[in-house]
Amino acid sequence: MYRAPVNDIAHTLKQVAGLEEALEQKRFGELSGDVVDAILEEAAKFAAERIAPLRETGDKHGAALKDGVVTTAPGWKELYRDWAAGGWNALTGAEEYGGQALPTMLSVAVSEMWNSGSLAFALAPTLTMGAVEALEKHASDELKALYLPKLISGEWTGTMNLTEPQAGSDLGALKARAARNGDGTYSIFGQKIFITYGEHDMTDNIVHLVLARLPDAPAGTKGISLFLVPKFIPDADGAPGKRNEVYCAGIEHKLGIHASPTCTMIYGDSISGDGATGWLVGEENRGLACMFTMMNNARLLVGMQGVAVAEAAYQKALAFARERRQGRAPGAKPGDDMSPIVEHPDVQRMLLTMKGLTQSARAIGYACAHALDMARTGTSDEARFWTDRANLLTPVAKAFSTDIGVEAASLGIQIHGGMGFIEETGAAQLLRDARIAPIYEGTNGIQAIDLVQRKLPLGDGGHVKAYIAELRAIADQAAASNRAELGDTAGCLAFAIADLEEATLHLQQALAEGRVQQALCGATPYLRLFGLAAGGAYLAKSALTGEDAGRSVLCRFYAENLLKETTALKHCVINGAESLMAARAALAE
Amino acid sequence: MYRAPVNDIAHTLKQVAGLEEALEQKRFGELSGDVVDAILEEAAKFAAERIAPLRETGDKHGAALKDGVVTTAPGWKELYRDWAAGGWNALTGAEEYGGQALPTMLSVAVSEMWNSGSLAFALAPTLTMGAVEALEKHASDELKALYLPKLISGEWTGTMNLTEPQAGSDLGALKARAARNGDGTYSIFGQKIFITYGEHDMTDNIVHLVLARLPDAPAGTKGISLFLVPKFIPDADGAPGKRNEVYCAGIEHKLGIHASPTCTMIYGDSISGDGATGWLVGEENRGLACMFTMMNNARLLVGMQGVAVAEAAYQKALAFARERRQGRAPGAKPGDDMSPIVEHPDVQRMLLTMKGLTQSARAIGYACAHALDMARTGTSDEARFWTDRANLLTPVAKAFSTDIGVEAASLGIQIHGGMGFIEETGAAQLLRDARIAPIYEGTNGIQAIDLVQRKLPLGDGGHVKAYIAELRAIADQAAASNRAELGDTAGCLAFAIADLEEATLHLQQALAEGRVQQALCGATPYLRLFGLAAGGAYLAKSALTGEDAGRSVLCRFYAENLLKETTALKHCVINGAESLMAARAALAE
Repeated sequence: MYRAPVNDIAHTLKQVAGLEEALEQKRFGELSGDVVDAILEEAAKFAAERIAPLRETGDKHGAALKDGVVTTAPGWKELYRDWAAGGWNALTGAEEYGGQALPTMLSVAVSEMWNSGSLAFALAPTLTMGAVEALEKHASDELKALYLPKLISGEWTGTMNLTEPQAGSDLGALKARAARNGDGTYSIFGQKIFITYGEHDMTDNIVHLVLARLPDAPAGTKGISLFLVPKFIPDADGAPGKRNEVYCAGIEHKLGIHASPTCTMIYGDSISGDGATGWLVGEENRGLACMFTMMNNARLLVGMQGVAVAEAAYQKALAFARERRQGRAPGAKPGDDMSPIVEHPDVQRMLLTMKGLTQSARAIGYACAHALDMARTGTSDEARFWTDRANLLTPVAKAFSTDIGVEAASLGIQIHGGMGFIEETGAAQLLRDARIAPIYEGTNGIQAIDLVQRKLPLGDGGHVKAYIAELRAIADQAAASNRAELGDTAGCLAFAIADLEEATLHLQQALAEGRVQQALCGATPYLRLFGLAAGGAYLAKSALTGEDAGRSVLCRFYAENLLKETTALKHCVINGAESLMAARAALAE
Repeated sequence: MYRAPVNDIAHTLKQVAGLEEALEQKRFGELSGDVVDAILEEAAKFAAERIAPLRETGDKHGAALKDGVVTTAPGWKELYRDWAAGGWNALTGAEEYGGQALPTMLSVAVSEMWNSGSLAFALAPTLTMGAVEALEKHASDELKALYLPKLISGEWTGTMNLTEPQAGSDLGALKARAARNGDGTYSIFGQKIFITYGEHDMTDNIVHLVLARLPDAPAGTKGISLFLVPKFIPDADGAPGKRNEVYCAGIEHKLGIHASPTCTMIYGDSISGDGATGWLVGEENRGLACMFTMMNNARLLVGMQGVAVAEAAYQKALAFARERRQGRAPGAKPGDDMSPIVEHPDVQRMLLTMKGLTQSARAIGYACAHALDMARTGTSDEARFWTDRANLLTPVAKAFSTDIGVEAASLGIQIHGGMGFIEETGAAQLLRDARIAPIYEGTNGIQAIDLVQRKLPLGDGGHVKAYIAELRAIADQAAASNRAELGDTAGCLAFAIADLEEATLHLQQALAEGRVQQALCGATPYLRLFGLAAGGAYLAKSALTGEDAGRSVLCRFYAENLLKETTALKHCVINGAESLMAARAALAE
């Protein structure tokens, strides 16, 4: 059963991603390292004792829709109630609305635990958190006063309504419409699909954030506005009042995250012609910018889902590999009994690969959260720098981490052998659950495009260079440390960082010369290269703290095995585009 | 909907894997290329029109067990009946028992089509084919006369009963027991798990091949005997007679292949003490050798399942990518509508990766089948050589192909975006189905160990060297051809083959020096390296025939993108073991 790796998490937060220094700088007021530890311990307890035990029953029962009512899996409602009552939903919310205003780093760290416990469960608060952030930044004071206390406490949940059948990655194509009612409210009409927790029975109200077009809006992404549409319109006391014209018309039958209802939501009644009543968030036609506030946050949290599932899969596979005996491992004496399969080199390679990728992705996610915290708490110069940093790392934190989540879950099945294919084992569910994360909140292909096209040019191309220089400084420290247990870590890391630099320069030049297509051909291998190299540097930084021998040997395994892939990826980025463009014709046959 | 790629299949069989030359040499009597084509066309028709339409309903309904009776999914029984009536089961069986004695190459090619249609369906005949081969080689004439006609026609199906709860990869640990009855029959007792189509309603008898121990058998793998245990004991006319003491006690709830019942089989009645009646196949205590006859065949066919699912996933994703419009691809003019996503470079990369890996794995499988055919039809010198070749390629054909099957199925989901996660789309099922193939018939880790420990030493290490020389000759031809459309194929291929050679020599030396553990640390990356390099050479051979421009551009994409991974893999093989061994301690924490 899952146990949160509190030690790894605290170490990575503090020693690797910069929390210790930020605490020393009093960036979060009186928050101390001890309080951080205490929060992590409490979260670990809740995740292990309350959430994880429901992971498999949630999967088995799923959520059910009947007569417009969505019933969540047994125990789900009570789990959510107790989780919110524990104050977990309020971790990052603004203090004036009842939040604890704790650092994003901490919120990201505990979010990993909720998701390791159950990805399907943790999705609900993930969406609420995005709604809170969008409202805090863009909503009127009236809307904030009415909705934020309930959303921050977790009394109500939030949703993000972007996707329509014809508008997935391409939000410019969306058709949902909004009409001005003349009293400051709007009437919303349209159909939204893939709405996570769009309808459920865990809270007595649900606050939908919905993208729609005004009648006079320009076409494309510049004509989209963001509206708040509550399931029940709050009455004078702020309690759920009149039922709004928004209903769940269907829930999806999905590969995984069965306990999370994925809803088709209908806004407005086509027969009566009544719309759903909505309130504008931010300015008219500026909805996409508001939504991006939510999406950046959500992307990082989805990245943590990848880390979370990878961690859960690793723990499950390791426990199995220690118990299960098959064959005799090399070195076993004739006459010995069967060895635990954890003693077989091939199984060790799989486990170490899972662990190395998990730790590296975790560090990338925390580094991204650190940048967000620094931007929020820093001077305006600092804020500029750290905002760029967060923007640079967000697509990597999302895509690299969710890719390795799928890889680790698949390796976890493999380690279980035949038992891995049997649903009761629970290893298969982790793959089924993990497989959504590379898709939603912007597919990993979109993340790669974002990284190349929008993030590499940050600071006239200088920001990524500065970041690579930071990674190189870590490799230099590893070299200077002369630690035997690090093996050739420094050499491998230096090569990987050189690969990253070369690929980066190549892409920046291609973009500067207008060869966008060539650059985009290499976007996905580039993002992977970025993640591997950055993750390797963070593992080295972790090892250099010298606080645990296990970190050094893991770092060395990662450097001498997994990091080797960067050179192949660099070749794909630099030399792979031409053949890709030449081969396109074969797809049109 | 699936359409068998008859053109690719025939081309790969004839021009790449050696069927054309074998036909010219009259190795298969009067079999001609035209007849081969006609058989492929007919098989393609059956797979597309009859099997593929039941893939998703079979998944949805699955197989059900009630009161010991397993009911297959709707339409399954009729599908099997018509498939067998079409003579498809008899393709490779011996002529004296009603078979058509066609080449393994052909059988492997059509098997891919059945599996693309539905992996769950094609599993039944895959197991029967293994049973036929084991009986043909090892059974007494009486057993052959009684069982082979029914198994070859498909009137009855066959099963393989190896696994027990404590004995999966390690067959030496099995406990099922057999007692001599004194009349030439044996009484079999024990429990077997994960028995594919161990019980079903498609035929009126099922022939189980069962591994068990005699009372006086030595411990371990040298004390295992193989028994034939029919569900119904044939009467004097050979018709199903008395019900035997073998029953299905449960079927598994699995990640995929739902329509294939995976049974727990109980042999013997623990209350009455009556065993299941069995007949010895081959010699006492030599059962493992007999079973390996089945397993080698089955491993190649499982490899083709990987190819089959990859092909099905590719076709589904390509069709979706041509239809689905999102965003504007680079090069689209402002004001253009949304582009089909197949025009986006990232989607193209995924599709070309799927196609390249599929074609390369297909060629490896066919090359392995070719070796089996050459061994069967050649002089004794030839047979020695080609048996070594088949033995060398079998683990690669099994593991590389099933790994890429999972990769392709996962990429297929990704290309579908959110729709890929919805079960109704069918893309998710392909991943769920594909995920078993790296596990059963010897996990891919076991295949890698087999390749390194048992296959690299073949011919005193000379056989693999000769194979690598053959691959190099292809790279040389590519270089000499000077075809512009091949880009840097020759250079990339030469590098990959050099990587393969270097890694091979390293492993052979490690084994020669008794450093088995070091060698096994690199087994899995080595197998992947082997598959990538061999597959690349076959793609180049295909391109060099010059019969289709699409083959050249695909080959070039593969060479300039996917083949680059070989250098990283070589590093893992040569330099990765030490860090792996150092890091093992971290797994014991």
